[in-house]
Amino acid sequence: MKSRTEYLTFKLPERMGLVNITPEVERVVTASGVQEGLCLVNAMHITASVFINDDEPGLHHDLKKWLEALAPFDASPQRYHHNRTGEDNADAHLKRQIGPWEQIFYGEFDGRRPKRVLVKVIGE
Amino acid sequence: MKSRTEYLTFKLPERMGLVNITPEVERVVTASGVQEGLCLVNAMHITASVFINDDEPGLHHDLKKWLEALAPFDASPQRYHHNRTGEDNADAHLKRQIGPWEQIFYGEFDGRRPKRVLVKVIGE
Amino acid sequence: MKSRTEYLTFKLPERMGLVNITPEVERVVTASGVQEGLCLVNAMHITASVFINDDEPGLHHDLKKWLEALAPFDASPQRYHHNRTGEDNADAHLKRQIGPWEQIFYGEFDGRRPKRVLVKVIGE
Repeated sequence: MKSRTEYLTFKLPERMGLVNITPEVERVVTASGVQEGLCLVNAMHITASVFINDDEPGLHHDLKKWLEALAPFDASPQRYHHNRTGEDNADAHLKRQIGPWEQIFYGEFDGRRPKRVLVKVIGE
Repeated sequence: MKSRTEYLTFKLPERMGLVNITPEVERVVTASGVQEGLCLVNAMHITASVFINDDEPGLHHDLKKWLEALAPFDASPQRYHHNRTGEDNADAHLKRQIGPWEQIFYGEFDGRRPKRVLVKVIGE
Repeated sequence: MKSRTEYLTFKLPERMGLVNITPEVERVVTASGVQEGLCLVNAMHITASVFINDDEPGLHHDLKKWLEALAPFDASPQRYHHNRTGEDNADAHLKRQIGPWEQIFYGEFDGRRPKRVLVKVIGE
């Protein structure tokens, strides 16, 4: 069995952002030398996600607006008990629950700090 | 290591539909000869999904109604920027984000065209 | 290839509850002897889920409240057709669609009965 594990690190300037990581994932798969196997791409942080969807700016606008409607940002401790800890990112913890296991896009919901994505390939 | 990869193709007549694909997946697993391993079942299109849930018609009604409330179909470019591209399926791109990684049911949210599901088994 | 499969069984006293199963998963991974591979943690019931998020009580409150708003419990057959079968758990079938594939937390949405979680490790 062959395997290869790499961590990609992202630090987005904005709170919420989407990054197409397909080329990075393709590079790791090629470097692994695996011809038959599985590739796991997983956000290592609980206020980010990895998902597959279309690389079309209008859709990214729609996706962000939709997630914001489902779990609005609100730093106050009234709406989200989690924010009584002094954090302000309860909404991001909820947003990442939508579509957590997929590939290719990195979804950031509480940015402005470095976060890693795991890329692991196993097979032969 | 053994592996087997098959593509199942679906073309549903309606925009939204659910298909129980358990027998097809079982057939591929049996054909693979794998006794210990993992089976990935993944929609190859970003307006469809694969998920596990109950094969009960009332629940399917509830699930469709629920997804329609979360991300209503609206072909106009006002609600969804994605539909300014000339497409009308922004809602389907959002619907498929709910429960994208699971098995056994094929969920179609923008049908009337052929779409494939990947079934890959690895192990030994 | 090495593999190890275990089933964890939970019977929570309340309808909805979250259990941190990280130590149990770590124990199975250690017992497997696998150094490089994948670990699948999957709820074997369609009214429960497995997900990764923060072990912070305020966030658990927020998550339960959020899921309840997205898919409210309602045993009557009016809101959910599934409950015309005599069941009362259509909401739980919907709730588990949010974040179905993840690790470490067990999410119960229709408790008071024993349910299993699969932990499978493969690799070498």
